[in-house]
Amino acid sequence: MRKIAVLGCTGSIGTQTLDVVSRDPEAYEVVGLAAGTNVELLLDQAAVFRPRIVSVATLELAEDIRSRLPGGTKVVFGEEGLIEVAAGAGADYVVCALVGSLGLTSTLAAIEAGAAIGLANKETLVTAGHIVMKRAADKGVPILPVDSEHSAIFQCLNGENRGAVKRLVITASGGSFRDRTREELTNVTVEDALKHPNWSMGAKITIDSATMVNKGLEVIEAHWLFDLPYDRIDVVLHPESIVHSMVEFADTSVIAQLGNPDMRVPIQYALTYPERKPSPASPLDLVKAGALHFREMDFERYPCLRLAYEAGRVGGTAPTVFNAANEAAVARFLRGEIPFLAIETIIERVLAKHTVTPLPELAAILDTDAWARREAAALK
Amino acid sequence: MRKIAVLGCTGSIGTQTLDVVSRDPEAYEVVGLAAGTNVELLLDQAAVFRPRIVSVATLELAEDIRSRLPGGTKVVFGEEGLIEVAAGAGADYVVCALVGSLGLTSTLAAIEAGAAIGLANKETLVTAGHIVMKRAADKGVPILPVDSEHSAIFQCLNGENRGAVKRLVITASGGSFRDRTREELTNVTVEDALKHPNWSMGAKITIDSATMVNKGLEVIEAHWLFDLPYDRIDVVLHPESIVHSMVEFADTSVIAQLGNPDMRVPIQYALTYPERKPSPASPLDLVKAGALHFREMDFERYPCLRLAYEAGRVGGTAPTVFNAANEAAVARFLRGEIPFLAIETIIERVLAKHTVTPLPELAAILDTDAWARREAAALK
Repeated sequence: MRKIAVLGCTGSIGTQTLDVVSRDPEAYEVVGLAAGTNVELLLDQAAVFRPRIVSVATLELAEDIRSRLPGGTKVVFGEEGLIEVAAGAGADYVVCALVGSLGLTSTLAAIEAGAAIGLANKETLVTAGHIVMKRAADKGVPILPVDSEHSAIFQCLNGENRGAVKRLVITASGGSFRDRTREELTNVTVEDALKHPNWSMGAKITIDSATMVNKGLEVIEAHWLFDLPYDRIDVVLHPESIVHSMVEFADTSVIAQLGNPDMRVPIQYALTYPERKPSPASPLDLVKAGALHFREMDFERYPCLRLAYEAGRVGGTAPTVFNAANEAAVARFLRGEIPFLAIETIIERVLAKHTVTPLPELAAILDTDAWARREAAALK
Repeated sequence: MRKIAVLGCTGSIGTQTLDVVSRDPEAYEVVGLAAGTNVELLLDQAAVFRPRIVSVATLELAEDIRSRLPGGTKVVFGEEGLIEVAAGAGADYVVCALVGSLGLTSTLAAIEAGAAIGLANKETLVTAGHIVMKRAADKGVPILPVDSEHSAIFQCLNGENRGAVKRLVITASGGSFRDRTREELTNVTVEDALKHPNWSMGAKITIDSATMVNKGLEVIEAHWLFDLPYDRIDVVLHPESIVHSMVEFADTSVIAQLGNPDMRVPIQYALTYPERKPSPASPLDLVKAGALHFREMDFERYPCLRLAYEAGRVGGTAPTVFNAANEAAVARFLRGEIPFLAIETIIERVLAKHTVTPLPELAAILDTDAWARREAAALK
């Protein structure tokens, strides 16, 4: 029985992780749950899974829920509480599904504690891939990708010799504006941007999908997860989002992973690997899909993807700046402060102002992150 | 260094096998070559590869070429000669690319000799899957598929637990008549039938592709190779022939193998497995392909595929009858004796006349094969 802690248990990945876990109760014991401020959902989850420890954002929230938790469940709070759930709940498997830089410190704590990592937090590898992959390797801890594209690549690499990999091909739906020209993007509204063609997600990731920042972050993550240079990681437009990604091998064979979009499949695979278990997702019907289309990625149309590759190639603190400037810019767009196309100019301008630290320690990464957010928030 | 014998060295698979081998001379030593009557090509190959033994169809041909072979190359002939190349040339790997029932006896001889098998002969598994797979298992000899569809499935199963396989999906181009109705098939000519949309092959296999008999044989082979019941082996129309086949797993994930049609890729994979090596095939460009289409297989449109499933499910000598009746019928069609649609009615009628032997020995299989050919040749 796998002892699981879920960091970010009330978010989209967290709730779907608990859905997967609840379908196979013999296989898992949930020992820790870390939420932020959504304490009502956390209390519901705690009542079902009866974890050893839960954490919330603040002391006030912790005091508030203490008496409403099951007997035997301890409540902790803040960053220290989060790290206690990650590293002190006795978990042998930690699903890291927090958003933002908190995800990085707690993931590192879980690695230090020797737990296997189901990784859904982008910042972890984007900002600190050189630290995280090394610590995981030193500890002998596997990093299992939860994102559908990286899970697809991971599945395509099953049983293969990594030395025979020629390139990775990450697919991109094209986002909510894929059929608009750049001219047509000048005056798009927040409402327009939030209509993703293939599924509904949070606002931030839907915007990142429209700007292709999301795909850029995935390229940087793939670089670290699969230890390949950027010129062997390609992105192709695939509007149907059925081929989740592909690997081309030395013999020209391409192995692809396909399925209906349902995050419970990659979440479950990260939990059951190397086994596969039945899933509640609906089976893929390619006849019903009819056709799968592929179009060349246009780096002029999606300059944020070009910036991501550039930041990735520069390395050091550059990807941290790319990510943090984007987060601040997207927040401003969602508040109606800036037009859609200003997201990319803000990222580019903050990157241009930044002096890169080549192999930053954790503190330098966090400082850079904060600096880039301030810059992006202040740019006119 | 792998010691290789190639049975059927002058055919399409045989020559492409030698092409693959010649590109990596450090990896292979060709110890045996078995041809039929194409002695000029065999002599060319023998001059290049200097095998220990070659075999030809008859004593006359053997006498004819004896003096023209390299020093140290022995020449043998007939079925005994073929078996000597398969089992007496010191090969640790035998590529079985003969057409017809000779393929079966020589493959079994190679298995008895303990050689790994690269299998390109359809009759071997279609007519004697129950014997061949058991003898290979008893001997601990791997059977590596050379056919592109089976190679695709084999690649998709890499590193996977076979118990998690839900179904196999074999793709079919649809053949030269895929855009014609059944009515339009009534008067098609041999010339029409020989125009395969995606590649050029021999006449027999091009007709088998148009009738879908070829796909039926592949379904039966897949049943034996991957040990799955027929209701978990599906066929889907895929006109582009880029997805070579797929595997659906318990978690709804589908793993597919893609590539440009080039038999050297699956041939090489069968030789290098579990490694992959650079191939002369052109890399797949999905953007250039643009779209991949999938259509439901229509068993009314392609009754031979329905007959193949039925023969496969009945088992015993039924698949032998299906295959032999088809061969005789196709030969008659190619000689202009019967219309295209008579191929399917002849197969159906010979199957209807046959009393199935459930677990036939080799002799019964060969008798049934001869009987079905006679029946199919005689039907009006």
